[in-house]
Amino acid sequence: MKADLNTLLKPKAVAIIGASRNPDKVGNVILKNYIDGGYGGRLYPVNPNADSVLGLKAYRSVLDVPETVDVAVIAVPAQIVPGVLEECGQAKVRSLVVVSGGFAEVGETELQDRIVKIARKYGMPMIGPNCLGVMDTRSRTDTLFLPTYKITRPQVGFVSFISQSGAVGSTVLDVIAGEGFGLSKFISYGNAADLDEVDLLQYLMDDEETKVIVMYIEGIKRGKEFVELARKITRKKPVIVLKAGRTSAGSSAAHSHTAALAGDYAVQEAMFRQFGFTVANDLSELIYFSKIFASETEPRGNRIAVVTNGGGAGVLTADAIASSKRLRMAELSAKTSRALRGRMPKLVNIRMPLDLAGDADEKRYGDAITAISGDPNTDMLVIIVLYQTPGADSTVSAAIVHLKEVVDKPIVVMSTGVGYTQAQKVQLESGGVPVYDSPAALVSSLEALLEHAEYLETHK
Amino acid sequence: MKADLNTLLKPKAVAIIGASRNPDKVGNVILKNYIDGGYGGRLYPVNPNADSVLGLKAYRSVLDVPETVDVAVIAVPAQIVPGVLEECGQAKVRSLVVVSGGFAEVGETELQDRIVKIARKYGMPMIGPNCLGVMDTRSRTDTLFLPTYKITRPQVGFVSFISQSGAVGSTVLDVIAGEGFGLSKFISYGNAADLDEVDLLQYLMDDEETKVIVMYIEGIKRGKEFVELARKITRKKPVIVLKAGRTSAGSSAAHSHTAALAGDYAVQEAMFRQFGFTVANDLSELIYFSKIFASETEPRGNRIAVVTNGGGAGVLTADAIASSKRLRMAELSAKTSRALRGRMPKLVNIRMPLDLAGDADEKRYGDAITAISGDPNTDMLVIIVLYQTPGADSTVSAAIVHLKEVVDKPIVVMSTGVGYTQAQKVQLESGGVPVYDSPAALVSSLEALLEHAEYLETHK
Repeated sequence: MKADLNTLLKPKAVAIIGASRNPDKVGNVILKNYIDGGYGGRLYPVNPNADSVLGLKAYRSVLDVPETVDVAVIAVPAQIVPGVLEECGQAKVRSLVVVSGGFAEVGETELQDRIVKIARKYGMPMIGPNCLGVMDTRSRTDTLFLPTYKITRPQVGFVSFISQSGAVGSTVLDVIAGEGFGLSKFISYGNAADLDEVDLLQYLMDDEETKVIVMYIEGIKRGKEFVELARKITRKKPVIVLKAGRTSAGSSAAHSHTAALAGDYAVQEAMFRQFGFTVANDLSELIYFSKIFASETEPRGNRIAVVTNGGGAGVLTADAIASSKRLRMAELSAKTSRALRGRMPKLVNIRMPLDLAGDADEKRYGDAITAISGDPNTDMLVIIVLYQTPGADSTVSAAIVHLKEVVDKPIVVMSTGVGYTQAQKVQLESGGVPVYDSPAALVSSLEALLEHAEYLETHK
Repeated sequence: MKADLNTLLKPKAVAIIGASRNPDKVGNVILKNYIDGGYGGRLYPVNPNADSVLGLKAYRSVLDVPETVDVAVIAVPAQIVPGVLEECGQAKVRSLVVVSGGFAEVGETELQDRIVKIARKYGMPMIGPNCLGVMDTRSRTDTLFLPTYKITRPQVGFVSFISQSGAVGSTVLDVIAGEGFGLSKFISYGNAADLDEVDLLQYLMDDEETKVIVMYIEGIKRGKEFVELARKITRKKPVIVLKAGRTSAGSSAAHSHTAALAGDYAVQEAMFRQFGFTVANDLSELIYFSKIFASETEPRGNRIAVVTNGGGAGVLTADAIASSKRLRMAELSAKTSRALRGRMPKLVNIRMPLDLAGDADEKRYGDAITAISGDPNTDMLVIIVLYQTPGADSTVSAAIVHLKEVVDKPIVVMSTGVGYTQAQKVQLESGGVPVYDSPAALVSSLEALLEHAEYLETHK
């Protein structure tokens, strides 16, 4: 079964079952977020004990809602979920998001089996239970029961993120909101009682609004289908995976968390890589890798030119490149060296990494990038801008954004700092230039990019 | 020679030679920063072509300054530095900071040798040339020619940082300003023509305002003295070292940067560790490690209890702990398990990592931390707070800060996110609780802490 998740992600009519007048309750937060988020469809709070919730007419039961509902979001105690789902089925609800917890993750597998049976009896694809549900930045559907002041909602983009864990998911969403790349869909699918990673990946593989898939998983339910799908999907778009429960300590914890079986990670990691997945080993790598793939950087090769306004940062980056598996420092051609010598001040040594010195301004950066990007011995440019130095300011950022459009090679920036530097990072990333805050983060991301390119090359 | 750097770092009278009226000039920025930074001593701009600079009377030569100067900060072109130093010597200037570049780093070794000779002839200890100079947060001396809008100045603290590279130094300073730990001294010593890392470390070893030493180096000039000092210093206080030029690509770049010889890093790293240094492999680790040592966390052992309000983050942290060399997950005693069972809601599984669930509030966190910190099977507590969840807010932060004071075991927090989470991080860190934003960063920092404790244990 290939689940069509369009109804679920682009609903025209949403019922929120358990919509409460109490602002501390999940059902209240979900409804409020739909309203505040500017959702353009129709909202139906369902609450047997209220006439209205947050200014909207409330219904005693989903059966009373005057139209066919695309998604029912269920936020009621576990024990009454089966009854609610029966009503949804009778009301011909098209799909379900069950955020309620209290199922397999606490040993209530029978109760979970019951709700799966009901959902399937009526042909309602179900996300959950024990999850945050779904967010689609374009349709502005948002079932997350998380107040917006605590979690910034990401801008519209092309990265879709599926997460078995709601909390990890919400944390990653919050971090993504602070990065320059946007989000397409977020799906927290919790216990995966009905729809699981295979269904979700299948949908995202063909989704035109998704260019990069990111997944946080604790276990895989359908190994065979997953493997078959994996081979197809990574040829179409990059898939970044962070697998929790890699060690026996972690994996027994994962079992108690979402009742997932973690399996032998060494085997799984080898399998992931064999199928062209990009493997993240930490939350931070998940973000770094998402950023480089979201930028749609196309590596031409592994020869990296480094331009810097701080000698030490150039050295650290050269170290990281030389220590990496796939990257190496570019060597400037004689022609490029001559061109640079003609344009750079005497104090600048013409060599890699090219240290433009602390007074480098947009002109010097521009001259260097222009000359080096034309060098046939260079495949990608790493531009280090330490904005703490006297010469670097927003004119340098603007020059880089401009050059990124006109030169024919990928440009990635390394820039570390708070305050002023953060503002420059926003300027660069709005212009489509990915920015990393340490040589290690940048180099591991370029590695991931090259590994993916190699995979595609050998699996045409 | 053991250089007494007190005069240099706590000057009562400072001459700025090359103080310019032009706000784009280094000598202007330095003077302005002294004034804006609230330096309490006397300032003497030296400029032969101006009567006053930034509202202060200017002097044609340091010989005209009406008192004996503790530090002369030199920001004039390289060629005229020797003449200026001669005048300083005749004026009995007590110490020198030469920020000017154009010496050994560009092959002008003879010029550099000349200024060293002059400085030594007159007994003036010299920092530089080709450096940013010094900052002392207590005396408010600040020779950095970096505008304050671009680099936030760190708060007063006990971490001292010496950096061969000015740009790396300024970047790290900026990042430190965004962290909860403060700075004592910052010394960018550039070409180390006179005072080098051995002199600086010797001073910092006995400096009561320094509890943690952090160093960024590209090469070591006096190997024998360095080794002798290293053995002593790491028994007195932790020393974190980031060495650039670890690979041949990086090391040849380092040579061109500050004319340092990088040496064989494998040997050097082994040596660093043998002497009890904490080795950072990236800018990010330098900050992470500084934070854990600055918190003066004293590890009692390697058994780590993990408490979380997000199951997945607990699993990722359990993975990182299990994958580490020194740490392992604590196992709760039967007594603690019983106590927790009595206080936790039914949905909470009593096991490690302890998942308090997404609705955990300050009471649940407090009960868990109190029970676990009394467990003889636990040495340290890692508290994960995902502030995106409904239950966690500043009352949880306040509870953790409070408990940190009353319980007898170290507490470290893992918390990831932007906006709201960043505000909570500030609250926690002002209360002395170190906060990390990824399981990997936290675990590598605890590893560093334990490695240092092991060193001290075996080198009593």
